[in-house]
Amino acid sequence: MPARAKHGAIVVLNAGSSSVKFAAFACEPDAAEVAERLLHGEIDGTGASAKLVAWKDDGTPLSGEDLMAAEAKAGHDAHALGLLFGWLKRQLPDHRVRGVAHRVVHGGERFTRPVRVTPEVLAQLEALVPLAPLHQPHNLAAIRAIAQMAPALPQIACFDTAFHAGQDWVAQAYALPRHIRDAGVRRYGFHGLSYEYIAGALPARLGPQAEGRIVVAHLGNGASLCALRARRSVATTMGFTALDGLVMGTRCGSLDPGVVLYLAREMHLSPAGIEKLLYQESGLLGVSEISSDMRTLEDSADPRAAAAIDLFVHRIGRELGSLAAALGGIDALVFTAGIGEHSRTVRQRVCEGAAWLGLELDEAANQAHAARISTPGSRVSAWVIPTNEELMLARHAQALLAAKNNR
Amino acid sequence: MPARAKHGAIVVLNAGSSSVKFAAFACEPDAAEVAERLLHGEIDGTGASAKLVAWKDDGTPLSGEDLMAAEAKAGHDAHALGLLFGWLKRQLPDHRVRGVAHRVVHGGERFTRPVRVTPEVLAQLEALVPLAPLHQPHNLAAIRAIAQMAPALPQIACFDTAFHAGQDWVAQAYALPRHIRDAGVRRYGFHGLSYEYIAGALPARLGPQAEGRIVVAHLGNGASLCALRARRSVATTMGFTALDGLVMGTRCGSLDPGVVLYLAREMHLSPAGIEKLLYQESGLLGVSEISSDMRTLEDSADPRAAAAIDLFVHRIGRELGSLAAALGGIDALVFTAGIGEHSRTVRQRVCEGAAWLGLELDEAANQAHAARISTPGSRVSAWVIPTNEELMLARHAQALLAAKNNR
Repeated sequence: MPARAKHGAIVVLNAGSSSVKFAAFACEPDAAEVAERLLHGEIDGTGASAKLVAWKDDGTPLSGEDLMAAEAKAGHDAHALGLLFGWLKRQLPDHRVRGVAHRVVHGGERFTRPVRVTPEVLAQLEALVPLAPLHQPHNLAAIRAIAQMAPALPQIACFDTAFHAGQDWVAQAYALPRHIRDAGVRRYGFHGLSYEYIAGALPARLGPQAEGRIVVAHLGNGASLCALRARRSVATTMGFTALDGLVMGTRCGSLDPGVVLYLAREMHLSPAGIEKLLYQESGLLGVSEISSDMRTLEDSADPRAAAAIDLFVHRIGRELGSLAAALGGIDALVFTAGIGEHSRTVRQRVCEGAAWLGLELDEAANQAHAARISTPGSRVSAWVIPTNEELMLARHAQALLAAKNNR
Repeated sequence: MPARAKHGAIVVLNAGSSSVKFAAFACEPDAAEVAERLLHGEIDGTGASAKLVAWKDDGTPLSGEDLMAAEAKAGHDAHALGLLFGWLKRQLPDHRVRGVAHRVVHGGERFTRPVRVTPEVLAQLEALVPLAPLHQPHNLAAIRAIAQMAPALPQIACFDTAFHAGQDWVAQAYALPRHIRDAGVRRYGFHGLSYEYIAGALPARLGPQAEGRIVVAHLGNGASLCALRARRSVATTMGFTALDGLVMGTRCGSLDPGVVLYLAREMHLSPAGIEKLLYQESGLLGVSEISSDMRTLEDSADPRAAAAIDLFVHRIGRELGSLAAALGGIDALVFTAGIGEHSRTVRQRVCEGAAWLGLELDEAANQAHAARISTPGSRVSAWVIPTNEELMLARHAQALLAAKNNR
């Protein structure tokens, strides 16, 4: 019996500290674009306690039970990914996985575009771990695990920093001595895959204004703003690490460097203790003492929850002013990611705070989560555009694999 | 022979790490305002190498030779101040010093206005040393030296933080856990005596607009911006320490807190080493590798000097946008302090960068260092107003001493 001709698929992975998000996209080798998403899901937890949840693109739940078999109890990261690929094979019998695209948080100064992972590339990405100690190791562990499991399978690393690589020097530099700057200490910025997706989605929504001065607010558990001119990144609120800028779920955002010195010297915290404090115990959680989740805070009557939201909104307003300065004014504001796509309150308050820039909120449109939430007469338009980092990853993988095929 | 009736004088002191700036103002006990400045000067260096330079208010140099006598060779801080007060007595035979006003960098959460120094107050100010380790100890050493020398002489502490005490919570808070915030870790802001002086000087220049939305740019070796509404501080760029915000002569300004962690963990710098790096080796000096002095950089053809100025100006523009957001727009921009009062180039570039806010520079007025440097039609007006922290110190002392007399 001849082997049935299979369709191509690209798997995208976002491997974090306690979960691996994944999706599979149909994609033929000679296609110009990625086709439909076949399924998506998440492995939550690692080893014996790992749980897989997954859905078809239409929202139908897929059973992850067979992944939860006894063998999973042996699990470590590599094993869980092995199980996932076995599960994917069973779910997608008519598809052959042509490549895996990974979201990798930090590309440093070298990687300013997606790259096919080789052992040399992997070694260079390892060297960047100190720049993103909480994220980079998990991204790379997944790449290593798959390389071991399927050495011939192409893996593509896509970087959260790459989209910002073209910013002017003044937007990237810290006022530090040369030997520190030469060691790679500069602003990189993150959420680049999200901003790149939004930049690509702007023309269909905004028309010619898409090429203007636009601030995108990626407001999720991690949060940042990005200033776009002609759909390129001009400035962003995150810097050397993903700590800087806006208040986040559990991260502090902007902080006087003197505070870090004070925590070390006067409060006797170790670097690891400070890292834990600033990454995991600060932000909305630290201020509210209730939750890092905006939905929980919005539902709370506790004044500490209100204080946390106040600070979150205030900081967005301040950074919006700073980015408007970087652009020399602003034509449009785009909300995206969890909070940006779903919180009417945050959007309303941010837009009201931006009235001085010429933004007039359409309250009904905002309540309805419409695509455009500014009034027709508003000088600055405001939008809600769902982001799609997964699709961006798949597109990059397809482009790299196609380039290889055409060589 | 009956004692001759003497006039009153107030001495103001700004005691730093390697110099003590001083001035004496005529001021009668029952006067509503401080009268003329009698003299002003500086003791540069300490101990045997200390040099005094001084002038009358009209610019006539005063001889400091007698301070440089052999006895000065024994010198330590206390001694130098003793010599200064002996010298002042000889210079001002017709005046009796009624009080000494000190510029004290940090008043913490407790001291939100000037205060007569008692042993209790001094102890509380000592406890704030960790919040300003490079400045506060010198301020307090001068107070202690004078208390020892002249226990009955009233000393008044005036704080660089106090003017910002009334800001909203969101402008002051970091998104840190409660126990860190409760330890006093918040934005304080500095240069308050300068901003208070400018706030007082606004009505005479700006008329009714003085009560509007104004950003003051205090650009000296230390540099910050302050947003004023109705002449009160609404927000400022410095935070917990004097490191944050703008690029300064040798200070870094805003920095991702993750950079401090990286310097500690990956570059193996001690907290003291990081402090030295960020306070003394960064900023204009660190970027240019030439000088911390804007005049030197402006005269240089070295591209590193140009890069340092570019970054300095860029950051002012970004923070100006952030403060305009805090104010909901801007009516006027005021330049003050060394660079603000004297650098045509910096003013021109900052104003050109603020065109998007509605500021139109009058180039001829700027070249001439005129008081108003925006065009008559400019929607946002721009001004140069020389600051006078000394006078602010003397006024505070006079007010406190008068309040005591009237009790």
